[in-house]
Amino acid sequence: MHSLGFIGLGIMGSRMAMNLQNAGFPLRVYNRTREHAQPVVEAGATFVDSPAELASQVDILFTMLSEPRVVEQFALGEDGFLKHLKKGSLWVDCTTCNPSFSQHMATAATSYGVRFMDAPVAGSKVPAENGQLLFLVGGDAQDVANCEPYFKVMGRGFNHLGGHGAGAGMKMVVNLLLGNAMLVFAEALNLGEALGFSRQKLLDTLLPTPVVPAFVTGKRHKLEQENYDPEFPLQWMQKDLQLASVTAYEHDTPLPATNTAKEIFQLAKQNGFAQQDFSAIFQFLNETRSNQAGVKD
Amino acid sequence: MHSLGFIGLGIMGSRMAMNLQNAGFPLRVYNRTREHAQPVVEAGATFVDSPAELASQVDILFTMLSEPRVVEQFALGEDGFLKHLKKGSLWVDCTTCNPSFSQHMATAATSYGVRFMDAPVAGSKVPAENGQLLFLVGGDAQDVANCEPYFKVMGRGFNHLGGHGAGAGMKMVVNLLLGNAMLVFAEALNLGEALGFSRQKLLDTLLPTPVVPAFVTGKRHKLEQENYDPEFPLQWMQKDLQLASVTAYEHDTPLPATNTAKEIFQLAKQNGFAQQDFSAIFQFLNETRSNQAGVKD
Amino acid sequence: MHSLGFIGLGIMGSRMAMNLQNAGFPLRVYNRTREHAQPVVEAGATFVDSPAELASQVDILFTMLSEPRVVEQFALGEDGFLKHLKKGSLWVDCTTCNPSFSQHMATAATSYGVRFMDAPVAGSKVPAENGQLLFLVGGDAQDVANCEPYFKVMGRGFNHLGGHGAGAGMKMVVNLLLGNAMLVFAEALNLGEALGFSRQKLLDTLLPTPVVPAFVTGKRHKLEQENYDPEFPLQWMQKDLQLASVTAYEHDTPLPATNTAKEIFQLAKQNGFAQQDFSAIFQFLNETRSNQAGVKD
Amino acid sequence: MHSLGFIGLGIMGSRMAMNLQNAGFPLRVYNRTREHAQPVVEAGATFVDSPAELASQVDILFTMLSEPRVVEQFALGEDGFLKHLKKGSLWVDCTTCNPSFSQHMATAATSYGVRFMDAPVAGSKVPAENGQLLFLVGGDAQDVANCEPYFKVMGRGFNHLGGHGAGAGMKMVVNLLLGNAMLVFAEALNLGEALGFSRQKLLDTLLPTPVVPAFVTGKRHKLEQENYDPEFPLQWMQKDLQLASVTAYEHDTPLPATNTAKEIFQLAKQNGFAQQDFSAIFQFLNETRSNQAGVKD
Repeated sequence: MHSLGFIGLGIMGSRMAMNLQNAGFPLRVYNRTREHAQPVVEAGATFVDSPAELASQVDILFTMLSEPRVVEQFALGEDGFLKHLKKGSLWVDCTTCNPSFSQHMATAATSYGVRFMDAPVAGSKVPAENGQLLFLVGGDAQDVANCEPYFKVMGRGFNHLGGHGAGAGMKMVVNLLLGNAMLVFAEALNLGEALGFSRQKLLDTLLPTPVVPAFVTGKRHKLEQENYDPEFPLQWMQKDLQLASVTAYEHDTPLPATNTAKEIFQLAKQNGFAQQDFSAIFQFLNETRSNQAGVKD
Repeated sequence: MHSLGFIGLGIMGSRMAMNLQNAGFPLRVYNRTREHAQPVVEAGATFVDSPAELASQVDILFTMLSEPRVVEQFALGEDGFLKHLKKGSLWVDCTTCNPSFSQHMATAATSYGVRFMDAPVAGSKVPAENGQLLFLVGGDAQDVANCEPYFKVMGRGFNHLGGHGAGAGMKMVVNLLLGNAMLVFAEALNLGEALGFSRQKLLDTLLPTPVVPAFVTGKRHKLEQENYDPEFPLQWMQKDLQLASVTAYEHDTPLPATNTAKEIFQLAKQNGFAQQDFSAIFQFLNETRSNQAGVKD
Repeated sequence: MHSLGFIGLGIMGSRMAMNLQNAGFPLRVYNRTREHAQPVVEAGATFVDSPAELASQVDILFTMLSEPRVVEQFALGEDGFLKHLKKGSLWVDCTTCNPSFSQHMATAATSYGVRFMDAPVAGSKVPAENGQLLFLVGGDAQDVANCEPYFKVMGRGFNHLGGHGAGAGMKMVVNLLLGNAMLVFAEALNLGEALGFSRQKLLDTLLPTPVVPAFVTGKRHKLEQENYDPEFPLQWMQKDLQLASVTAYEHDTPLPATNTAKEIFQLAKQNGFAQQDFSAIFQFLNETRSNQAGVKD
Repeated sequence: MHSLGFIGLGIMGSRMAMNLQNAGFPLRVYNRTREHAQPVVEAGATFVDSPAELASQVDILFTMLSEPRVVEQFALGEDGFLKHLKKGSLWVDCTTCNPSFSQHMATAATSYGVRFMDAPVAGSKVPAENGQLLFLVGGDAQDVANCEPYFKVMGRGFNHLGGHGAGAGMKMVVNLLLGNAMLVFAEALNLGEALGFSRQKLLDTLLPTPVVPAFVTGKRHKLEQENYDPEFPLQWMQKDLQLASVTAYEHDTPLPATNTAKEIFQLAKQNGFAQQDFSAIFQFLNETRSNQAGVKD
């Protein structure tokens, strides 16, 4: 049985680690803010005082962090974990990163004799809690096979999409769709309200149609109650759109809609919506609509 | 039994009129390009030589034209049909127009003693042919009731959304979703290909997910075969996004994604894709990606 | 000597009317908010109680209103002034309107036997006060000649650009440049500050270069003091970008930068900047940058 | 007297190196495409067969390359020049890079005992030829002082803006202004033509006004003759806008106009304009306007 480690216990990581722990796998965990580790520690996991120390004790290390620069800092920064991982151990990065970054991490891992897999997840808070995530995996088949028991505990399955970076690449494509679609629906809902339709009428009319992606139905209660407790915080959606933009540049690919969405999420992020669910992009547009005031002659 | 008229026999109108004719309703038709009327005339409809003459002979007039300025020209231009319609007759405009334009037409109709209903449709070429359109209706309940038999022949039903302009308003919201979603999917597919995934792999992976609206599946064969025979021509999608933009201005509503989409469809329209299906927005982005050439030092 | 009328005494109109009055031309004025007429009345002008009454008393009517729909309401709405103007009198509309609207007004005027000229101005509050505006004129040469004495009193000159709508068209092109350039400079200044340069250093470095248009230097004190007393209110800039967008659609012309600017000004307008000078677009972007807050893991 | 090296002899570098050579400084040069070095070699410079070899022979190394990834490859890639530069020698990177990249290079240089300065230039082909560039410099005062004789030969002066990255930062701000302004002017010119004004009339009217930056006058003949021989190739402008976008993300700064411009330049780049002057963005928009074709009913 592998000895497992988990670094990064935010909204997603805390739930994923808990599912590993509850399945009976021996688990060591680390998080910068220690109190976020409390529930999984109470469930039996061992808190280790530093990423370096944790790395030296595990066969497979899962990381679920906020963004590439944080991953790089944990892995390669001062006393980073990469040089402490055992030769032949496996680092599975579940963070949503851009594919060229994942490939860069794969190269760095290899130089330390460590195996690497990018395995970001489709699904946010609730699927993480219920073990219903889908892992989008880039890496070697044997490593994927070794992780299958853990993917099955944390998720409903996995999709092995290719070599290093392939999981990150598909995740980026998925989140590009997600972020843009939410903004587009926010504009539609907002215009509909401006035309005099009630929010409920619009949701009743539009959600069942084939022009709205199914995930929006899962946001209905947030839009109705104007309560945007985060499943997927808006600031991370903004980051993912940025990563897509950078990746597009690396491949000379135009992304005009995505770049506009990135900027609007940026404005929303900096107008108080950073830590709310990304569906609050509707609230940002809607509030500004209502705020309007005009001069008179 | 009402005497029916139908003006505008393009991709949509020709199929809608045929369904009326085949259901046995006595039908008079007019189209600027007469040969487009040939099939419905062969099926038994009467071609009338001018909109004015046709108007004087019918109880209910359906129009299915390309855009508001064409509707205005037919209705109120030189020898426009409005002044030739009988008092108490009903004009049902199925053209996709902006709501303030529909309200303007309602006012004009009233001034001639004519009743008005805006009834644009959800659905494009194939549902038009199969009688599976959905009418989005703005107008008086009695008029809607009178049209029910005709809506049922041309479509699978109708949604009475409110007074004059309400049908046009909801249609605009729907098409805003449609146009933006197609551009967003085009960007996702294009970025995925740039990352090395095959088009088929991407379609297989993405289409079943809740982040892609179901209508995109209906475009799969076009994207695979790069054959964009129009169900809904790209130029009319561009027009609809423009109408949404104008409507948003009238109501002080921000539509940043929609305005970007409008401009990208404009560029595609003017680079040879005007008359292709609006899903060809993918082709526009994809071709430009492949065209790339860089200088060397 | 012509009897002159002036309708619309806002930031611009009040100063223009005052210059006419001070030059000794007999002037009748009207404004919805009567107190704005007080200064020019004290200077000798006659306040008339309605646009219709004023129209019946003058040979040349100047209008300086907020936007096309307001012009249309004054001219053609209930008791609109057009039908009260004398046959052969001249209406000079100085409002910034889209060219197709100006052509529409020219047609309406002609139908009442009234002559029309579009004469929007380049220059905002200070040039209006100092009689240093530049009139951009569309209309007949004889009418332009008749107005020359008045243009010279209100401005430093005029540019006769063609028939009806040509003045409006050139004004739209100028304001498109102005609005976009202000947003672009706001982004540059904001990015420069984010990189650690002081605002003063950036202004010192950038303003003298050939990459920044000269008008920005006139905004320097506003940017330094973060005091955006309006010379040209942001909401009217947003309107002008919208009119440019509509005009571009009428002529199938892509305006991607302008449409983005339009939407960002819309967001700024509805976040409290509507009545501030349009250079406050910097403040909108700058404040949101400073507002940022991120979640921690 | 320092021994000087110059790597990168493209449009800019070839002219800068020639001015150094003509001023009598002993110069070693390298370029991937050797024939581009021919003129400066004929003027007396020594061609060295590899960057590594060149680096080992010089006190000050100037680089003028296309973009950060190329700089990184030359400096730190296989047999990169950094490890061959003498301790205490100075590397002056004139390439337009993003500031965080320049800081990264400074750190790398320091680790090899090499001094670093970022010194991108304001000015394109003609000022490069005439020795009229302006160096925007980030680095230590002593290094700047040492380079003064060389800056004076290649340019009209320098602006020492701060520590490492400050030159790159200001250059990015300048190019952001330049790229956006060119697109904005292209839109204005295009809309003006669509309204019926001749190109010459528009240029005559607009160029002298304070709403157009002075550099556009230098593009007049290109716009008139539709001949876009590159002074500053469009593809590098697109790159610079991308670098600004990345930098803005690093500093959480919104750049909505710049991101739109980046995408439109990307589309132009991939539609055949990559190697033309960046003012060809007008041609891209203008051609698409003229290409337009619409379906008829």
